[in-house]
Amino acid sequence: MQFRTDLAMESRDWAGKPSGVMTRTRVHGTIEETFVCIETEEAAKALEKPAGAYMTISHPDLYRAETRDRMELSRCLAKALKTLLPQDGDLLVVGLGNRHMTADALGSRVLESLLITRHIKDAARDEIKDRLRGVCAVAPGVLGITGMETAEMVHGIVEHVRPAAVIAIDALAARECSRICTTIQVTDTGIRPGSGVGNHRAGLTKDTLGVPVIAIGVPLVVYASVIARDALSLLFHDMDMDEDAHAQAIDALLDKVSRQGLGELVVTPREVDEMVGRVARILSDGLNMALQSRLSEEEILSLSHDSL
Amino acid sequence: MQFRTDLAMESRDWAGKPSGVMTRTRVHGTIEETFVCIETEEAAKALEKPAGAYMTISHPDLYRAETRDRMELSRCLAKALKTLLPQDGDLLVVGLGNRHMTADALGSRVLESLLITRHIKDAARDEIKDRLRGVCAVAPGVLGITGMETAEMVHGIVEHVRPAAVIAIDALAARECSRICTTIQVTDTGIRPGSGVGNHRAGLTKDTLGVPVIAIGVPLVVYASVIARDALSLLFHDMDMDEDAHAQAIDALLDKVSRQGLGELVVTPREVDEMVGRVARILSDGLNMALQSRLSEEEILSLSHDSL
Amino acid sequence: MQFRTDLAMESRDWAGKPSGVMTRTRVHGTIEETFVCIETEEAAKALEKPAGAYMTISHPDLYRAETRDRMELSRCLAKALKTLLPQDGDLLVVGLGNRHMTADALGSRVLESLLITRHIKDAARDEIKDRLRGVCAVAPGVLGITGMETAEMVHGIVEHVRPAAVIAIDALAARECSRICTTIQVTDTGIRPGSGVGNHRAGLTKDTLGVPVIAIGVPLVVYASVIARDALSLLFHDMDMDEDAHAQAIDALLDKVSRQGLGELVVTPREVDEMVGRVARILSDGLNMALQSRLSEEEILSLSHDSL
Amino acid sequence: MQFRTDLAMESRDWAGKPSGVMTRTRVHGTIEETFVCIETEEAAKALEKPAGAYMTISHPDLYRAETRDRMELSRCLAKALKTLLPQDGDLLVVGLGNRHMTADALGSRVLESLLITRHIKDAARDEIKDRLRGVCAVAPGVLGITGMETAEMVHGIVEHVRPAAVIAIDALAARECSRICTTIQVTDTGIRPGSGVGNHRAGLTKDTLGVPVIAIGVPLVVYASVIARDALSLLFHDMDMDEDAHAQAIDALLDKVSRQGLGELVVTPREVDEMVGRVARILSDGLNMALQSRLSEEEILSLSHDSL
Repeated sequence: MQFRTDLAMESRDWAGKPSGVMTRTRVHGTIEETFVCIETEEAAKALEKPAGAYMTISHPDLYRAETRDRMELSRCLAKALKTLLPQDGDLLVVGLGNRHMTADALGSRVLESLLITRHIKDAARDEIKDRLRGVCAVAPGVLGITGMETAEMVHGIVEHVRPAAVIAIDALAARECSRICTTIQVTDTGIRPGSGVGNHRAGLTKDTLGVPVIAIGVPLVVYASVIARDALSLLFHDMDMDEDAHAQAIDALLDKVSRQGLGELVVTPREVDEMVGRVARILSDGLNMALQSRLSEEEILSLSHDSL
Repeated sequence: MQFRTDLAMESRDWAGKPSGVMTRTRVHGTIEETFVCIETEEAAKALEKPAGAYMTISHPDLYRAETRDRMELSRCLAKALKTLLPQDGDLLVVGLGNRHMTADALGSRVLESLLITRHIKDAARDEIKDRLRGVCAVAPGVLGITGMETAEMVHGIVEHVRPAAVIAIDALAARECSRICTTIQVTDTGIRPGSGVGNHRAGLTKDTLGVPVIAIGVPLVVYASVIARDALSLLFHDMDMDEDAHAQAIDALLDKVSRQGLGELVVTPREVDEMVGRVARILSDGLNMALQSRLSEEEILSLSHDSL
Repeated sequence: MQFRTDLAMESRDWAGKPSGVMTRTRVHGTIEETFVCIETEEAAKALEKPAGAYMTISHPDLYRAETRDRMELSRCLAKALKTLLPQDGDLLVVGLGNRHMTADALGSRVLESLLITRHIKDAARDEIKDRLRGVCAVAPGVLGITGMETAEMVHGIVEHVRPAAVIAIDALAARECSRICTTIQVTDTGIRPGSGVGNHRAGLTKDTLGVPVIAIGVPLVVYASVIARDALSLLFHDMDMDEDAHAQAIDALLDKVSRQGLGELVVTPREVDEMVGRVARILSDGLNMALQSRLSEEEILSLSHDSL
Repeated sequence: MQFRTDLAMESRDWAGKPSGVMTRTRVHGTIEETFVCIETEEAAKALEKPAGAYMTISHPDLYRAETRDRMELSRCLAKALKTLLPQDGDLLVVGLGNRHMTADALGSRVLESLLITRHIKDAARDEIKDRLRGVCAVAPGVLGITGMETAEMVHGIVEHVRPAAVIAIDALAARECSRICTTIQVTDTGIRPGSGVGNHRAGLTKDTLGVPVIAIGVPLVVYASVIARDALSLLFHDMDMDEDAHAQAIDALLDKVSRQGLGELVVTPREVDEMVGRVARILSDGLNMALQSRLSEEEILSLSHDSL
């Protein structure tokens, strides 16, 4: 059985904090920012995560956050991104996932409100022209829909467009239901092979693409097998019983519960469709602020509804 | 804790077969048809289901059924419907649920391929005119979207349109993951208050609407709490332990696992978006055959893509 | 040949201003508000419009209006609506048109951002509870999709829900391309039979529904026949020729140009899909301000993304 | 003024048939197949079309074609494609256009029912494995949405995926309303720069991509300026007047009629949304037959709803 998590924060919870990991936390109002830096290969191995910076921006409920909190979340995301992005050069934003599968559509939906400027920088109005950064974007789709690995496509595009960095947006799977729609994770380690809600992605990293890859993810599902597993663990703990002694029985049970010929079952809130739309908007607002850091919020808002 | 099921078949499994319940089963190929008739009020009480006819058409995987099986499933549905429908008069098909919530969109998606004829009977070509039955349809939306009880709206429409019967289509919640997308249920008892995937519906029955109400449902979700519950039950059974002795501990655990401020969590296959589209097509093909029973399959197929 | 217009303003342009018509205009910035009151039956006959109040809010380009202008347009709409709405009682908003046909989807898209409150007034937080007005909404679909006249359905719903007034939203056809997406029309005369972009609607008026009907419309298409007609008229005028002398030749020509077995051809801007989304938002913001006139703009904004 | 047409057939009509052009026509039932081969550079220049093969499959109304005709149209398309495709090697299908703009969404909608096989050839069932041809597909989006030229993206992908040929699907603009939705054009000359409904495309040709490019197009719009222009031409012809003598007046008029700050106006049938869906299905069925030419129609139908 496999209990996947795409969240560095959950790895930490699970494994305890080994040496070689630096963490820092800041709380303001309902928002908590955590900065985790996995600094050594030993720590990376212990946590089963690549070395690098992981920032998480948490809120009790991204979906129902009030307007003021949503703006603040976008600003936190912008701030985190700015520490990881190269100063200059065009940027390519990649919306991962399957737009036809609700929870997995986050990546492509973020692109809907993103300011796309690479093709219009020269034609833009004089007063903003010099301050626009070139941004382009693609939602390449998933292997089952295109017949091509996302990495193949993105690689080909990167070679032609030559951006200074790639920003990849993805819906994540979490280990705990309580993580769903409460955390935005930003990391400079790129997309790990095998992560993501839908088809497990091929990796998108600096190694494979030749440019820095910043990944932004939000947990939107938990695999059903994880729910059943957690119920059992809690029970054993509660009854002071030794879980390991019953490992075989437990595996057989989980099998019965979760594998039923329907493919992987996922757990989501009923409102996941609307949830994805709102979270996408928080992310695209934050991206616009970070990527167009020389424009004011008013200019961005106005451009995002305006033809340049 | 509440372990809802909208399936009569699951009530039967759960409760054993009391007297006053007649059941009949027919298997052909991969399809199993079950007919359950709850004949007495005692039986209805024992099963917590209203008295009436419940037909289920089962297939190991409605989503991946081959073309031939899909056609056969539509024909079984048509046959079941024809035993319950009045011989003559216009029919109103009501697609329940929220079209903006994937699993709950089944009702409104069935309407997309339904032959709507009430307004064109007189204008239709002579050779089919006399054989067309008047069909109209509405997807009234859910309380949270409209601010009106579905029952209020349907009642108002029924009074003006005066159909001979109402057919209501709904996505159901099941008790077991193995039921998801494997069963079509048809019943003449209408829609029970509190059923359905999304907002729990107000009832639509002969009592409330004044005309017969046939309900067609397909289980598309299981509540996450049910998964956790079933895992525990299996475990206790496996370990020869007395479940009842630990009831309180179990309830507390389930609480921990499933209630986390996100509203109800549901379990669905990852592919639920596409699944709903295919099941909707099986249902609308079956409805077209039953409602236009004096047209041939070829005529129906042709009309459903053709302007009359 | 029929040269339909749903705009009172265009009737006026066409016919000159007869007596019995009162007009008033106010310009502020890029927005022009016009108030036309057809006061006598003679004037109504001359203009081929029912007697009543017609307010238009014009802007050179609703689609590309800047944020500030969009807010101002919503406020103008709110002001116009408030002069026509009853002081108290629940309101039913009806989104007319076919959600599957881009230009005709305006009505149903306005509902997406409308505050629906009728069902939650009692459950709402204390500090806003007393100030919420009950609003419910329905997008009944068109005759070709439902098999029922919109008027039948709305009538049935009105009898059950008993609102103090109905507000109907509709996409309009204009006579001139320059009107597309530049004008919001508000009238207390309801929906005329035969108007609207798609299927020509049955009427929704105080006479048919028994409660006041306020109609809000935005021209989004021009019929192709109108374009051809206008080209010819301009030409004749330019060449100092007598149009009437060639009427028969002209009609034959228009026939050749526009009727080609494809049903009615419409002229729209290429960006009509996105245009409808933005205009819908201007309308729903204006509706929320008018309908919830005891809430502040901040409270409305917050509620429209917040669960109550 | 520019009167664009993307149809070779219309160039022919317009210009008469110069030498160096070979044409052949076959009529069966309601379907007419035309084969135009522009064989010399002189002919290409005269027709303002690149030299190559142009096949058109015409039907009075693709949208309302009966089931039998639709199947036959798909088979004609398959036959035409097979004469142009390389015998072996993987194929990349590119759905051009903007999925958010109705008429321009044809390309991306064709991909929805296309059999994608490149990634599963090895995993497929033994009995079809050896007969599957590798097909992959991408809908790259338009410049305004991605900030990248389609040609850049496709070029990058082609270099990584190395298909034997590219097949590009596009919605076309026609010169005459009567062409809308009545013609499927297949050509081995690729996509010309400046063609297409929406953003005028950069070219996709053997020269730019290094592999053969087959383009499939269906006219779905006419520019409004064309309608006005045609009305005037007919009139002058009818009145035995010299059009050229009034050229300046005409240009001024067309200007007045069609350029009104809204961007380009297009003429489409009101039902264009549904029309695009049906035509997309005819194309994807035809593509599946041509690309999987070693599978039977039954096998294709079954696979297209079946997981492999």
